Amino acid sequence: MASEFDLIRRYFRQATAPRDDVVLGIGDDCALLQIPAGQQLAVSMDTLVAGRHFVPEVNPVDLGHKALAVNLSDLAAMGATPAWATLSLTLPAADAAWQTWLTHLMHGFCTLASTHQVQLIGGDTTRGPLSITVQAHGYVPPGQALRRAGAQVGDMIYVSGTLGDAGLALSTQQGRYQPTTAAAQATLQARLDRPVPRIALGCALRQVAHAAIDISDGLGADLQHLCTESGVGAQIQAAQLPVSAPVHTYLQQTDDWQLPVSAGDDYELLFTAARTSQSQIQQIAHKLALPITCIGEITAATALSMTLPNGSSCPLGTGYDHFARSNLNRG
Amino acid sequence: MASEFDLIRRYFRQATAPRDDVVLGIGDDCALLQIPAGQQLAVSMDTLVAGRHFVPEVNPVDLGHKALAVNLSDLAAMGATPAWATLSLTLPAADAAWQTWLTHLMHGFCTLASTHQVQLIGGDTTRGPLSITVQAHGYVPPGQALRRAGAQVGDMIYVSGTLGDAGLALSTQQGRYQPTTAAAQATLQARLDRPVPRIALGCALRQVAHAAIDISDGLGADLQHLCTESGVGAQIQAAQLPVSAPVHTYLQQTDDWQLPVSAGDDYELLFTAARTSQSQIQQIAHKLALPITCIGEITAATALSMTLPNGSSCPLGTGYDHFARSNLNRG
Repeated sequence: MASEFDLIRRYFRQATAPRDDVVLGIGDDCALLQIPAGQQLAVSMDTLVAGRHFVPEVNPVDLGHKALAVNLSDLAAMGATPAWATLSLTLPAADAAWQTWLTHLMHGFCTLASTHQVQLIGGDTTRGPLSITVQAHGYVPPGQALRRAGAQVGDMIYVSGTLGDAGLALSTQQGRYQPTTAAAQATLQARLDRPVPRIALGCALRQVAHAAIDISDGLGADLQHLCTESGVGAQIQAAQLPVSAPVHTYLQQTDDWQLPVSAGDDYELLFTAARTSQSQIQQIAHKLALPITCIGEITAATALSMTLPNGSSCPLGTGYDHFARSNLNRG
Repeated sequence: MASEFDLIRRYFRQATAPRDDVVLGIGDDCALLQIPAGQQLAVSMDTLVAGRHFVPEVNPVDLGHKALAVNLSDLAAMGATPAWATLSLTLPAADAAWQTWLTHLMHGFCTLASTHQVQLIGGDTTRGPLSITVQAHGYVPPGQALRRAGAQVGDMIYVSGTLGDAGLALSTQQGRYQPTTAAAQATLQARLDRPVPRIALGCALRQVAHAAIDISDGLGADLQHLCTESGVGAQIQAAQLPVSAPVHTYLQQTDDWQLPVSAGDDYELLFTAARTSQSQIQQIAHKLALPITCIGEITAATALSMTLPNGSSCPLGTGYDHFARSNLNRG
């Protein structure tokens, strides 16, 4: 059976390309990093647990991607540029089957890492119930980080991409929904399995957005976090929520607005900006070829409400909570 | 049932005293840190899994201490000064019993954190099989980090404190040994449950030691790591190994030298230094009121061997491996 040290050597040591700011990577008691002058460090840590955040039979390539992606998404939400990651992996065994699984996991992890010039600098491997903890580290110029606090009354509220795709993929996976086409099902599943951290958008918003958060728990819950930290409220227009064609079809079939509002795992950016920034934001959207949609407005009243297409109003749901519910696949 | 957000707010947000270099702590997508000019960052991540690194019925105060201590020990082994920690906690439930447990865990964690001015800056809470992942971050002046590589032929090999206490406590806990007195048993158990990271020693050794590592896997295994990275070998004198009174009694009873050599979890520092540094090292020992013992010498031959008190020689064991064996309580 391969030893812990063999595993580390084999899969982790040269997994990612070296960076100039890494003085010492994997293989000593600590990694050593040289932070460039004039940069602040942003760090985020997330754990994915088998049976909770992913099904045990998940494709390990996807899981490796996702474990890093959810952390890079947090960097994106701060406007930070990714730099390095640490990875702690708890595996049930180290036999040949798990070594193959690990190879695939690292393939997914490292492919995404190389897209963003992220170096894997350290971590741990232990035996136990399957789970993955990643910490991502990035840079942001002092004073330019996008915080949750900072939204101002009258700000417009924006989201990138589309909402509810991952949630609908989960419903499909759990047999509660069947998309109309195989292509739609594949599109949704890819959104659940391989979220795209909006790094370029986060960086572009540094001097534009007043407040930002990534949507991991669901639009309602994450907008609530942003509003609570900012001491404001929000009014959302359901008809303006950006949805993909499969989710549009689902909404026509079910009128279930909870899906785009409460489903998590979208990993899109939710941010607010001054009304006067509208054209600048559309330029960013154009440049990044990424839809950015205005979905409502920040209000002085601290409640969160949504106007439905029929003109009625409802409070916004507060989404997913790891301890209050037990759904799979939400970050 | 308390939500994830409630848990974070209640136990983590103001758990530790604020530091000047923390721009933004817990509560946003990322923590933001301002690294002082002229310092490199050292980071280390370790996971403790229930049933593997600790028994589920462990005192949570001890577990909180240990989860941080094993990471601070890695900083110590690099000669780094601790600064911040992140904590990812996977809990089976969030009911009243687990909330009490969590309060105790955080008490142990934060008491040790405050000893070293460590601020808890972020992390994650998820539901699942009990485990704890901590990443510790510290500072070290450029070029002064203590690495595993760097041991030179003719260097003297030193260890701090005593060896084998945690291993004997584990044997006791598993019913394989009974210390002669209750006091001895308590002393051993404290060494297993509440290891003391040798931070001050690591810092004092910055310009003295040629190479260093902390003893988590066992003297033999960790000396092997150091020698492999340095491209050297080592000759150890069993009679010089520093042991506590209970371990001394055990050795007299059993002649089992594998205990101080192969048992892990000691979290003492193992380092090498030039023969000419001997008096300087004894001054450090005196100043820190911490025994530092010369146990052997670095050799050109890359093998590791130990001379037993009877004059015979044996190869040094390679200690604990998380995937090759299944003992509890070794980092």
